[in-house]
This record gives sequence, C-alpha cells and structure tokens, in this order.
Amino acid sequence: MTLSCERLRQYCADALTRCGVREDDARNTAAVLVSADMRGIHSHGVVRMIGYVNCLKSGGVRADAVPRICRESAVSALVDADRGLGIPATLFAVEIARQKALECGVAVVNVFNSHHHGACGWYSQQLADAGLMAAVMSTGDVIMAPSGGAGRAIGNNPFSYALPAGRYRAVCYDVAMSAVAAGKISIAAAQGERIPLGWLLDPSGLPTTDPADYDRGGALVPFSGHKGYGLAIMVEAFAGLLSGGAMLSDIHAWNCDPGTSGNVGHQIIAMNPALLNPGVDLAARVEAMIEQLAAAEKAPGTQRILYPGQLEQERERAAMEHGLDLPDAALDALRAVSEACGPTLDMESMRFEE
Amino acid sequence: MTLSCERLRQYCADALTRCGVREDDARNTAAVLVSADMRGIHSHGVVRMIGYVNCLKSGGVRADAVPRICRESAVSALVDADRGLGIPATLFAVEIARQKALECGVAVVNVFNSHHHGACGWYSQQLADAGLMAAVMSTGDVIMAPSGGAGRAIGNNPFSYALPAGRYRAVCYDVAMSAVAAGKISIAAAQGERIPLGWLLDPSGLPTTDPADYDRGGALVPFSGHKGYGLAIMVEAFAGLLSGGAMLSDIHAWNCDPGTSGNVGHQIIAMNPALLNPGVDLAARVEAMIEQLAAAEKAPGTQRILYPGQLEQERERAAMEHGLDLPDAALDALRAVSEACGPTLDMESMRFEE
Repeated sequence: MTLSCERLRQYCADALTRCGVREDDARNTAAVLVSADMRGIHSHGVVRMIGYVNCLKSGGVRADAVPRICRESAVSALVDADRGLGIPATLFAVEIARQKALECGVAVVNVFNSHHHGACGWYSQQLADAGLMAAVMSTGDVIMAPSGGAGRAIGNNPFSYALPAGRYRAVCYDVAMSAVAAGKISIAAAQGERIPLGWLLDPSGLPTTDPADYDRGGALVPFSGHKGYGLAIMVEAFAGLLSGGAMLSDIHAWNCDPGTSGNVGHQIIAMNPALLNPGVDLAARVEAMIEQLAAAEKAPGTQRILYPGQLEQERERAAMEHGLDLPDAALDALRAVSEACGPTLDMESMRFEE
Repeated sequence: MTLSCERLRQYCADALTRCGVREDDARNTAAVLVSADMRGIHSHGVVRMIGYVNCLKSGGVRADAVPRICRESAVSALVDADRGLGIPATLFAVEIARQKALECGVAVVNVFNSHHHGACGWYSQQLADAGLMAAVMSTGDVIMAPSGGAGRAIGNNPFSYALPAGRYRAVCYDVAMSAVAAGKISIAAAQGERIPLGWLLDPSGLPTTDPADYDRGGALVPFSGHKGYGLAIMVEAFAGLLSGGAMLSDIHAWNCDPGTSGNVGHQIIAMNPALLNPGVDLAARVEAMIEQLAAAEKAPGTQRILYPGQLEQERERAAMEHGLDLPDAALDALRAVSEACGPTLDMESMRFEE
C-alpha cells in the first residue's frame, strides 16, 4: 500500500509522545525518520521506530531529555544531549552551528550523551539549505572490523557533507565506512541470498558469503580496506573522543541493549562561503561542477553521471507527489510499535490519495 | 646506495635556489619532499623535483612568489599563493591555521593560485604536533573518472587528517580518492606487470589490466565507486570552489604542461581540543583508542592492527637512523634536475654514514 508521508509522520509522532517524548521532539524525530524513507534510505527510516520505542520504554533513552550547551564560544559549542533521542539533540546542535557559521564564517559543534540520530546527511542538507557548506558525523556501536582485524572493534561511523547547489538545491553525501550497510546484509539474509566476499567476516574472522553470519556476531568489513577504516577512526575522534562521548566498545548497542545509554557522539562543522570568500558565488560554482561532471563521457551502460544525493532528492520529490511505499521490515516495525505503545495502526487511514 | 636525508635535502634545496626560489622556501620544499621519501611515500618525494624545476624554469610556477592573505577573520583566512610553489604556500597557510586555532579553537584557511604541495598528510601532522586536530586537502588536475564515467573528469583529490596521539606522536591519514595512486600504476608499467581490474579504465572507458593505458590517457577509478567519487567532490568544493581556485578540467596538469599555472586550491581545517572541550584529554583518548584497536583480535595472517600513519612514522625513524634508499625513478629525477639547473649530483657525497 502506498502511504501518505504526512500521515505516516503523524503516526510516528503519536507513538513517540505516548512514550513521553515532548511534542516538538516527537514531531521532529518522526520527520527525520520518514524523510529517510522518502529518500530511499529505508535502513534509517521508520524501521528504527521500534528500537527508539524500546529504548524510551526501558530507560536507555530519556524521553524528557533537554539538550543543553555546556561550553560555548563565538565559533563552537559543546552540547550535552542529556541521554535523550539523537534526532532532537542533533537538530539543536545544527541550529547552533547554523547561527554561528552565518555570523562568524565557521562553526564546530560537538554533542555527547546522545543516541542514534538517523541518516546524518539530513542534517548536512539542512545546513546547505541555509547556504552553508557542512559536514556531520556520528559514532556508533562496534560492528566493523579494523583492517587486519577478525571481529567487531569499531563502528561503521557515518560521515556526511553537503554543499548548497543553487538550482540543484544541494549536493549531499552520506556514507558509512563499511563496504555495505548492515541493513543490506540483513535484507540478503531475509531473502535467503548469498553475499559477495568482502562484505562480512564470520564470527571466527574469516570472509563469508553467508549473510546470517552477521547476526551470529560477524563483523562488517571497511570499504577499501585501510581507507574506510582510517575514516572510521577520524569520525571516532572528531565526533566521539573530542565530544567526551563513549569510545569504541564502550558505546552500547542500542538495538540489542535498549536499557543502557549509548553515549554516542556527533560533530557538526559548518562554513559560510559568503564570509570565507565573498569573491566566489559558491552555489553557482557547485552548479557548474555538477553540470561539467554530468556532461562527462559515460561508461558503456551508464545513463547518467550523478552527483551525491541526486537520487535521494528525486525519490523524495516522488514520495511527496505520489506517496511512499515501505519495505516489509518497516511495516513490521510499525506493527511492533503499535503493540508496544498503543497507537492503533490503521494502515487504511494512512493510504496516499493523489 | 643508502643516502643521508640531510644531504639529499641540501641537494634539492640547492637545485631550487638555482631556479630562483628564495632560500627558506627552497629549504622547506626540499624538507617536505624528502620527508615523503623517508615515510615511504616515494610518489610524493624527490621524484617530483624535476617537475617542480620544469615548472619554475618555464614560468608555470613563479620562483619569487610571495603568498599573502587576501581576507582574514579571527578564525579564517584566504591565501593567494601568488602562483608559486605549493609547499611554501601551504606552510604559510598552516602557520596561520595553527595560530588561529590555538587562539580561537577553530580555524579554516583556504589557498588558491597554488601548485602541487606534496603529500598533504605532512601538513596535518605538523598541526597534530602542535596539539591540534587537523584536516588538509587539495585539488589536482583531472586524472580520475566519476562513477559511471568513461574518462578523466575529476582529480583524485587527496585528503588527510591528523590527531595528536601522545606517546604515539600522531595519527595521520593521507589518501587520494582513486582505488590506487597513479604512481603504483606507473611502477607496474615500468616492471611490465598487469594490474587488477578496478584500478584503471582504458582510453575508451573500459576496465583494463594494462597499466600502460594510463599514459595513453586512461582514467583512474575511484575507490569504492560512489564513496571515493563523492569524497573527491567534497575536496573539489572545500579546497577548490571555495578558495576561488580552478575547477575540474580548468586545473592544468602541471607535469604535462609546466608553463601554465595550475591554480590548485587547498583547505586547512584546524581544531584545538583544549579549547573546544577542556574536559577531555584528547591525546590520551587517542592513545587509548590506538591501544584498544591494536589489541583487537587479528585476522589469520595479520601480525599487527595499525593506526593510520604508523608505518610511515616507523619508516621515517628508520630513515633518520639508517639512511634512505630511493627508488630508481627518484634517482632518475635527480639526474634530470642536475642537467636542468646545474648542481652536480655527486651521489658519493650524499652517502649515509652510520
């Protein structure tokens, strides 16, 4: 069934408020999750709702958390997320970064005592929409092997950046440091398919083609070996160590252990091109870059050369116009949410109407 | 023959001063190049000397350039490198970033009208040695295909970061965005070896195992497909578009076209953990991270789990203690330098003595 994005957001917000989350935080959290589904990033969409609800109900995430600034300068801030949901805390930090970068040209905001915050590209894109160049990154619990490692020892620590891009709105890059996301491996497992060598190690540390080895404790493999591993260390340091968040194996796996605070860390970097170099029209140059790359000669079989985030923007527009189809795992998660905290899941009432 | 690093530096500095470069700029340029060889990054070492000399002699690089600040705030600067050598210009910018970050917590310095600046990890490491967290990146001429592209359309735009690491000195990551560096392909070509599929496209845009296709105009392939390509776009934007440097195909290939200024751009980001979060001892946390990762279970056949830059630091110490062995290509380059600008290449006088 094709769903209305607006009604799906309302459903998720209702569920979160029933767990004690303040109304604005619930609405924002629902919006960020549904937006990930709209952009086709279902691994970071409403499928996460049941995990959030479990953490809220078991106390690992505080429903009434109030993020606050612990330390501040004209160009920086350190935010204590108060062990609350990651999305409201990150939005709080993004707004600080936006204001400071608009005023001073540069801003760096770190967050600790936080939690999973959905797809980090979403925050970068908000800053790009304000005319800023941005990078947003987050630590996560250990699910990836280091280069040369046999087991889980570091998060696949997502990193995103975005650029204002004039008539193309924004360039928005958002990746994790593993060869593929854990979600892709879970889908293969659910469909009974094998995976290529190079995605996953089995619990003994050997390369495997069996996706079920992930749930047996196997480790994701970094992309491009030491290149992905080294970037995971960068995110661990800038988002986690600097913030005062937990490090490596001290970050709790929130979806396995909902009752314990994860103490995830984030970092938001924002730069204002209009102040750093008023001599260039950055968005116009980004437009020109997109066009030069799109016009490059294509490899056989390739239709388009894309810029980062282009497909996601196209999908988002399509979902706004024609509604949203969710994967089965997301529907299952919504059913579990309905059971866990009460709001009736009346799919018919969420049906999209052209 | 094993060479003395000190005497090799002196030789390179002499050659650059004979091309009209000021003595301190010549000494610094020689130091950065020799340091790359000492760290085993021979592709960015003295092998580049002949290219620098050709650019200086043909006017593509101004020997008497004086980098200057065009625009400045407490936390940012824009530097015009005056079409000079990239190494002195970047050192100038790094010093500005160091001072501003120490004072204000954050600094962003952009450079335009610059040139190849050697291995960018070197600059990140200097900032880490000053107790700062740093990232340094640079544009370059187009030698890589975009994801889905058939030919050269973007640089393999190097990116580095570094962290102060207490008794481990620094974590220092330094990569280009191609699956492998062009230098590695040239070595395979010189040795008559094939290369794996996935490194290079032939001039018609098809994957090739023949390394000679690179010199025929073939394009490097980004690492991990859209992940490496998207990071190359990030560097293009932050280091090039924001700086006002040339974009994509407007960046001249300095080693093919030494008489034309490349207008390369760089960006230096520095953060002072002591100001951003005085509640953490960042270097101590980085030490702990290194140790936790080193203690992780190893994959079969792996002796050590390394941190970024560890091998390079070990090689650098070994070169200081036991001298430096250069690859043939570097020795050929030094001979060409001797012919081009005069200083006698007396290898015997450069021999390392324990």
